[in-house]
Amino acid sequence: MKRHQFSANSWQEVGEMDRANTTILIPLGSTEQEGTHLPLGVDTFVAESLAHEVAKETGALAGPALPLGYSEWFLEFSGTISLKLETLTQVLREYTSCLIRHGFRKLIFINGHAGNSTAVDVVARECTLSQSARIAMVEIWKLANLMAADIPDLKEKSFKHAGEIMTSVMLYLHPDMVTMDRARVEYVKSGQGPFKAKSSLGFADFKGMEIKVYEGAKTLTESGIMGDPLSATAQKGEMIFNRLKSYLTEMVTNF
Amino acid sequence: MKRHQFSANSWQEVGEMDRANTTILIPLGSTEQEGTHLPLGVDTFVAESLAHEVAKETGALAGPALPLGYSEWFLEFSGTISLKLETLTQVLREYTSCLIRHGFRKLIFINGHAGNSTAVDVVARECTLSQSARIAMVEIWKLANLMAADIPDLKEKSFKHAGEIMTSVMLYLHPDMVTMDRARVEYVKSGQGPFKAKSSLGFADFKGMEIKVYEGAKTLTESGIMGDPLSATAQKGEMIFNRLKSYLTEMVTNF
Amino acid sequence: MKRHQFSANSWQEVGEMDRANTTILIPLGSTEQEGTHLPLGVDTFVAESLAHEVAKETGALAGPALPLGYSEWFLEFSGTISLKLETLTQVLREYTSCLIRHGFRKLIFINGHAGNSTAVDVVARECTLSQSARIAMVEIWKLANLMAADIPDLKEKSFKHAGEIMTSVMLYLHPDMVTMDRARVEYVKSGQGPFKAKSSLGFADFKGMEIKVYEGAKTLTESGIMGDPLSATAQKGEMIFNRLKSYLTEMVTNF
Amino acid sequence: MKRHQFSANSWQEVGEMDRANTTILIPLGSTEQEGTHLPLGVDTFVAESLAHEVAKETGALAGPALPLGYSEWFLEFSGTISLKLETLTQVLREYTSCLIRHGFRKLIFINGHAGNSTAVDVVARECTLSQSARIAMVEIWKLANLMAADIPDLKEKSFKHAGEIMTSVMLYLHPDMVTMDRARVEYVKSGQGPFKAKSSLGFADFKGMEIKVYEGAKTLTESGIMGDPLSATAQKGEMIFNRLKSYLTEMVTNF
Amino acid sequence: MKRHQFSANSWQEVGEMDRANTTILIPLGSTEQEGTHLPLGVDTFVAESLAHEVAKETGALAGPALPLGYSEWFLEFSGTISLKLETLTQVLREYTSCLIRHGFRKLIFINGHAGNSTAVDVVARECTLSQSARIAMVEIWKLANLMAADIPDLKEKSFKHAGEIMTSVMLYLHPDMVTMDRARVEYVKSGQGPFKAKSSLGFADFKGMEIKVYEGAKTLTESGIMGDPLSATAQKGEMIFNRLKSYLTEMVTNF
Amino acid sequence: MKRHQFSANSWQEVGEMDRANTTILIPLGSTEQEGTHLPLGVDTFVAESLAHEVAKETGALAGPALPLGYSEWFLEFSGTISLKLETLTQVLREYTSCLIRHGFRKLIFINGHAGNSTAVDVVARECTLSQSARIAMVEIWKLANLMAADIPDLKEKSFKHAGEIMTSVMLYLHPDMVTMDRARVEYVKSGQGPFKAKSSLGFADFKGMEIKVYEGAKTLTESGIMGDPLSATAQKGEMIFNRLKSYLTEMVTNF
Repeated sequence: MKRHQFSANSWQEVGEMDRANTTILIPLGSTEQEGTHLPLGVDTFVAESLAHEVAKETGALAGPALPLGYSEWFLEFSGTISLKLETLTQVLREYTSCLIRHGFRKLIFINGHAGNSTAVDVVARECTLSQSARIAMVEIWKLANLMAADIPDLKEKSFKHAGEIMTSVMLYLHPDMVTMDRARVEYVKSGQGPFKAKSSLGFADFKGMEIKVYEGAKTLTESGIMGDPLSATAQKGEMIFNRLKSYLTEMVTNF
Repeated sequence: MKRHQFSANSWQEVGEMDRANTTILIPLGSTEQEGTHLPLGVDTFVAESLAHEVAKETGALAGPALPLGYSEWFLEFSGTISLKLETLTQVLREYTSCLIRHGFRKLIFINGHAGNSTAVDVVARECTLSQSARIAMVEIWKLANLMAADIPDLKEKSFKHAGEIMTSVMLYLHPDMVTMDRARVEYVKSGQGPFKAKSSLGFADFKGMEIKVYEGAKTLTESGIMGDPLSATAQKGEMIFNRLKSYLTEMVTNF
Repeated sequence: MKRHQFSANSWQEVGEMDRANTTILIPLGSTEQEGTHLPLGVDTFVAESLAHEVAKETGALAGPALPLGYSEWFLEFSGTISLKLETLTQVLREYTSCLIRHGFRKLIFINGHAGNSTAVDVVARECTLSQSARIAMVEIWKLANLMAADIPDLKEKSFKHAGEIMTSVMLYLHPDMVTMDRARVEYVKSGQGPFKAKSSLGFADFKGMEIKVYEGAKTLTESGIMGDPLSATAQKGEMIFNRLKSYLTEMVTNF
Repeated sequence: MKRHQFSANSWQEVGEMDRANTTILIPLGSTEQEGTHLPLGVDTFVAESLAHEVAKETGALAGPALPLGYSEWFLEFSGTISLKLETLTQVLREYTSCLIRHGFRKLIFINGHAGNSTAVDVVARECTLSQSARIAMVEIWKLANLMAADIPDLKEKSFKHAGEIMTSVMLYLHPDMVTMDRARVEYVKSGQGPFKAKSSLGFADFKGMEIKVYEGAKTLTESGIMGDPLSATAQKGEMIFNRLKSYLTEMVTNF
Repeated sequence: MKRHQFSANSWQEVGEMDRANTTILIPLGSTEQEGTHLPLGVDTFVAESLAHEVAKETGALAGPALPLGYSEWFLEFSGTISLKLETLTQVLREYTSCLIRHGFRKLIFINGHAGNSTAVDVVARECTLSQSARIAMVEIWKLANLMAADIPDLKEKSFKHAGEIMTSVMLYLHPDMVTMDRARVEYVKSGQGPFKAKSSLGFADFKGMEIKVYEGAKTLTESGIMGDPLSATAQKGEMIFNRLKSYLTEMVTNF
Repeated sequence: MKRHQFSANSWQEVGEMDRANTTILIPLGSTEQEGTHLPLGVDTFVAESLAHEVAKETGALAGPALPLGYSEWFLEFSGTISLKLETLTQVLREYTSCLIRHGFRKLIFINGHAGNSTAVDVVARECTLSQSARIAMVEIWKLANLMAADIPDLKEKSFKHAGEIMTSVMLYLHPDMVTMDRARVEYVKSGQGPFKAKSSLGFADFKGMEIKVYEGAKTLTESGIMGDPLSATAQKGEMIFNRLKSYLTEMVTNF
């Protein structure tokens, strides 16, 4: 018997699999502020749910989810727990090298948090250089952003931190963790000067061009929300989640 | 509203808590061989379940569980994913320092895997020296061992890797992940020589005294089982789990 | 006397400056394959030239340029010299902390190589968190891409590795280092499968959406060129360089 | 000529040995508080003496002793010099890898300080995994504890930090370093609460079960003594030391 | 076509070279106080100029210059930017290993700063042990010292930090960066005690013997000058520079 | 009572000392080839003996000796055990920071092995910058070299690795560890080429100037001897040792 959850199998069951042809889906999350109304674990919960659903459909295995990512810029918000980027990179290096040691050759990172991407890049490129494995990564919110454009009634067509897309997906997956009466509309604030902050990652606008000016997250947003979550619904969330799931299912099938 | 799962709360909800008096329970697991009949994630699953149950009872918060521990000696068994001890230590250092930064002062590690203990020791002693937090750790299997002695019908009174206690707890918590027809009785093998291996951690007997002689895990056990899981039942598992839960509940209340 | 090149001043001359109000421009480059016709040092040369020109205009100082960046995925091409991302991050951490120790509070990284960006992010966010300095970064090729759209006769409106924009700038700045008879048109190759590589950084297309599938650079491009450099001219290069220079001059003035 | 002290031989003399069949005994010590009446170097002195005596008997070689171990929790006591556990691990990794490079295949750590044990574990497991050497470790005080039970007149049958066993051994080996008029009886103190400290390593009792609650060493003991050294005598020390020596001699002979 | 500057060639041009027989000259500099009249980048500028001149003469390639070295003891002087020695060592390790990967086997470090020497030593010895490359290093100021003895009119026959030799070379290479009216005569100061400081590197005299007593650089020199730059001339500088160049040219030819 | 050996005192005895005015002598050694006739531990033995003798005379304390140094270039010779320079530096950083934590402010490294010097430099400069301690270092063989010039009958006036000075000192201190019938005269070999090796540290002569060309130690010397030990006598050794001891005694008294 093969269970879709990697660590729900015994070592012997793993050993009997056709490991070279079994894709491992590695969910990466974070524990960070996601606005006043969404739980700290949004990125982890969604990445993990997706990985499990897709594994069930495809015969891939969902590996253990990492609940801590690189979110150092949100440390001013209570409850954010961040690894250093160097530490996260080392964790991923050891995680993937163990899988490769066991004969797995196809790894897809299901990444719920943009801050983790470079750690994946670094490890994946090392594997590419040594030709030890074939590695891919999807950033789920970036993908959601691309997929949401034609969702009916979606007010906020582009993804915003703690905005309509993220809130909708959470209302679908974990409505008990969403406190809608703490939700409000807030956009990244920018001072009077000519540099206009665009996101908490450092992106800013100066004279119509995008550059980076790093500012403390607390100066950019009081609530941590950087969009409009008020029109979010579970129905929209279900639609977005299912699109992600379908896409990833096809992706795994073709990987 | 306060949810017992740390990352099910928003940053604002965390920020409104009486953080100095709220205990965080940090589940530590592993992804390693646990015999032919038990899943790789046993340590993580049990530590996480316990932390959640105890958090519900006590008002403590169950922090994100770490599913990778230090299990390097089991790497010969398919599916084992291990961090270096140095890496795990650094992860715990950053995990605890973020919590301390946010004002938490009471941390209890619910440790499902003995190999992780020294990483906790190192970080806890640093916190003690800097007087930044009060830290405790329970090793759940060691505790189960102490608590199981008078369980009726328990054949194996002392805890064995993948033996009756561990198997029983998993039959109670996750029967779907246990493949009893792969279970068998196996004890740590020792060759003809005068050094008798006692466990996969290196403990050995020489002339009646316990010392350490490090051997590859595959030479000590074929199945990964180091005891007798055949008499395990969900009922025994429930009893053990509930004792652990009661004990930890009292512990948190008094911490 | 104040020279625009940071290290052309003596320590005493630096000490006499109004350091809190003097911006340091830090050029970051790379030594990596830039196609068959362009020199390995393109990123360094352009970043350094820009920093110097802008410093002359504004009273900022151009700090020492780092000629090695993070380019590990190009190591299959002769001559590429790459630092590990962790090493580059540590170098930037020490570079900035020394400047901050001396009282400088305004740092702008003039980054000629996209692979370096995360190292800057990490260090800048640490400074933001400790409120020790105000830090910005421009990625010069990304900016060139935004600025080139309406350049007359520019065939390749979007920036390509070793393509028309980069080649033009080099024909303007260092024509002696460009070997146009080695130039040719080549685009990122992708095999027959459904995953279409889009760049050497791992970006790929699957069913119309951008994800990442990491592949060895040599399988993506023979020449290292990923665009069409054949229409490049020094005149276009001058125009692009001057736009970059004007923009940065304004940026520094307003920083 | 072969001298029992590893570093008393020249490189040529070492090179002429049957290295694959020569056991190296590696003494590990510490520099830490050992009560008011015992010197900081107890662990080092005893481990080194044992290694030398056993080497003389067996043809093994006593390698250089490391006088600094991992004792961070005693840093509040004057004179304690501790390495980080990560640093100690790296030192042991390099120490063993040099010996293995030279062809030695049998290493036994004579460990005088429990805090060092995990560093040995880590390195030994790496060697086991790579099958590069056969490694064992004895913790001398744990062994002394096992061996002392039937010593006549020994009041304190179980080993205590700076108690009767340790003091006796030092009275035998280095009476000049023992200041008996500073000796006194003191046991680990525990406050009024329900958690009762059992040792300086973090072990504590809660409701009859052993868990860990980390406390500053200075709150547990004023003198650093955690037992009763007053009945210690050189005669008892000689008996204990000789038992250790005999046991290790047999062990080496059979290794 | 082969350009003498390593990074002025394309990867293809590098790939076509007879790499095993082409020497790479690696200029190492610093950004540190060099007296009140000399620029922070003296070491970098001179090392880089030399490497380029020698490369032109010999067919060797001048690799990218590192402008930051290990100068931590000068951090009290404004503008000094220092790497940790460990960081510099790692940078050199990666720099050389990339070159070796590409087939280069002959590397000569043109080192403008004595503080960098051990980092080169460490990396070079590793290469020697693995027999991966042949490595040499020249410390240019030490060489200048040896070569200057018979220069006519040279008042200061031995090299001093910011003294006549260094100032002369800079007056020859970069007169615009020298502010002679800030030059003055200053020697390393030593207090009343029996230990007489001899240099900023820690060398001191006690009773006629050289030992090391480490002191803050600011207590040793106000201006950073530790000699007499007043008689420096461009003519002397040219003579010294040309001797260095001739010597290195012969060295490369024979390497 | 105060014992001259640091770790022969109890923590309480250390705590009662006038720590700010008590100098700690830290012996640094190595375990490396010292010729065919001298033991691997020469540097450690001599440094430790000196530190103890001087401590007895002066009221200083001899700290624990480190028997492993940085000797990587001798790894080809059986028995050499070397730390990485980075590891040694970290060990010294932790060693000194513990002493400083306990209130010691005067540290003198008695360094028996030139390869360790930079590690001391790095740590000492950090202490100087933070003004946490006053640190000095003597390299004993360099000092012996300076002091031996007028010793009657000394054939080899300058110090050579495993030559007359080192052998004489060992004949005085540890005659049982010297195997004179394995001694022979050997000087650093150099091939036919124009680069003449001068030592195993990389120093070489090219056209009368000293540069560095790194070569494997085994190509430089067969025996590891790089001088003439045949005229060594215990009498000469005693004279040299006593000069070192007197000098250091005066040094400590004045420190």
